[in-house]
Amino acid sequence: MKLEIWFEFASTYSYLTVSRAEALLTAAEVEFVWRPFLLGPIFRDRGMETSPFVLDPVKGEYMWRDMARRSEAYRLPFIRPRMFPMNGLKAARIMTAVLEQPWCGAFARSIFAAQFGQGADISDERILRSALETCGVSPGPWLERARSPEIKETLRATTDRARNSGIFGAPSMVVGGELFWGDDRLEDAIAFAQSRHE
Amino acid sequence: MKLEIWFEFASTYSYLTVSRAEALLTAAEVEFVWRPFLLGPIFRDRGMETSPFVLDPVKGEYMWRDMARRSEAYRLPFIRPRMFPMNGLKAARIMTAVLEQPWCGAFARSIFAAQFGQGADISDERILRSALETCGVSPGPWLERARSPEIKETLRATTDRARNSGIFGAPSMVVGGELFWGDDRLEDAIAFAQSRHE
Repeated sequence: MKLEIWFEFASTYSYLTVSRAEALLTAAEVEFVWRPFLLGPIFRDRGMETSPFVLDPVKGEYMWRDMARRSEAYRLPFIRPRMFPMNGLKAARIMTAVLEQPWCGAFARSIFAAQFGQGADISDERILRSALETCGVSPGPWLERARSPEIKETLRATTDRARNSGIFGAPSMVVGGELFWGDDRLEDAIAFAQSRHE
Repeated sequence: MKLEIWFEFASTYSYLTVSRAEALLTAAEVEFVWRPFLLGPIFRDRGMETSPFVLDPVKGEYMWRDMARRSEAYRLPFIRPRMFPMNGLKAARIMTAVLEQPWCGAFARSIFAAQFGQGADISDERILRSALETCGVSPGPWLERARSPEIKETLRATTDRARNSGIFGAPSMVVGGELFWGDDRLEDAIAFAQSRHE
């Protein structure tokens, strides 16, 4: 039974989960797949034109403090980017294009580390190129593939699947028909996958 | 440095924290105080006429599933009450009236267990009496004290303090100027209190 990790590149708590997941899941011997999707359309369906953390500044300020603390606990670099939320569309398309590659997790981690570890703008093609180079590949062909109608449609379809699965935020883990929402539930989702496997 | 546990009797996740806190804090040798308050006025300030879990049914349904799973993990009885949110005003006034009593934590746990362990209506005076009796005291004088202008005003003032402390949900833990929101952060709050004490 595969554990699905649904994440959005602009999402703060997705940074924590994407940075931690591969090591935890490998150690737990739980198979998994990355499911990059877009939260924007799902938020809009729910009457929100931007991140709930922007619409609700009190909760937003708390989130940044919480992110700083959790990043420190996980020993992940963290700064609050000047812009939030960033536009993660291009990064999500590239991730969709590289999902079959063994280095796709490294690509996702590199994008998140640039954004929340260094404050870089992940809609900037230089950042996207650099993340691909970090994975040891030539960026050109992947950037081109990410712009193809097929990949755009795949990302749209993945976002529709998220919506139809009852996903309302990121990160979300889905395994064996159970939905787990938030980085705080990553370990629970892994434990659930293991319990089903035994 | 005392750790403050801010909670609302109608709040699902407050059930988890109130049920767990006293044992965890005692084992950790961290001093604490209960801070019963009302979320209703704070939600209304923020444009919500009821619980966000009612206003957002998708998130609400997820919350009930999550509560069932977390309760099981903590070995706490759990059923989804037919009514949500319940009116926790009387319970909060009684808790405010009994805060100096050594059995006040037991009273809070009894109310939450009746609500989320058995589905009882915590605005029903029989449930409130029963919870007081569980603590080995005669309910009458405490119910009377809970109806006094002084206690009503104290609860209002506590709710104002919550709002002014940036509290936007329950449970919330406050210690050494740091706010921790949600049952998921109880252990973090305790660890923070310990680190400051050393």
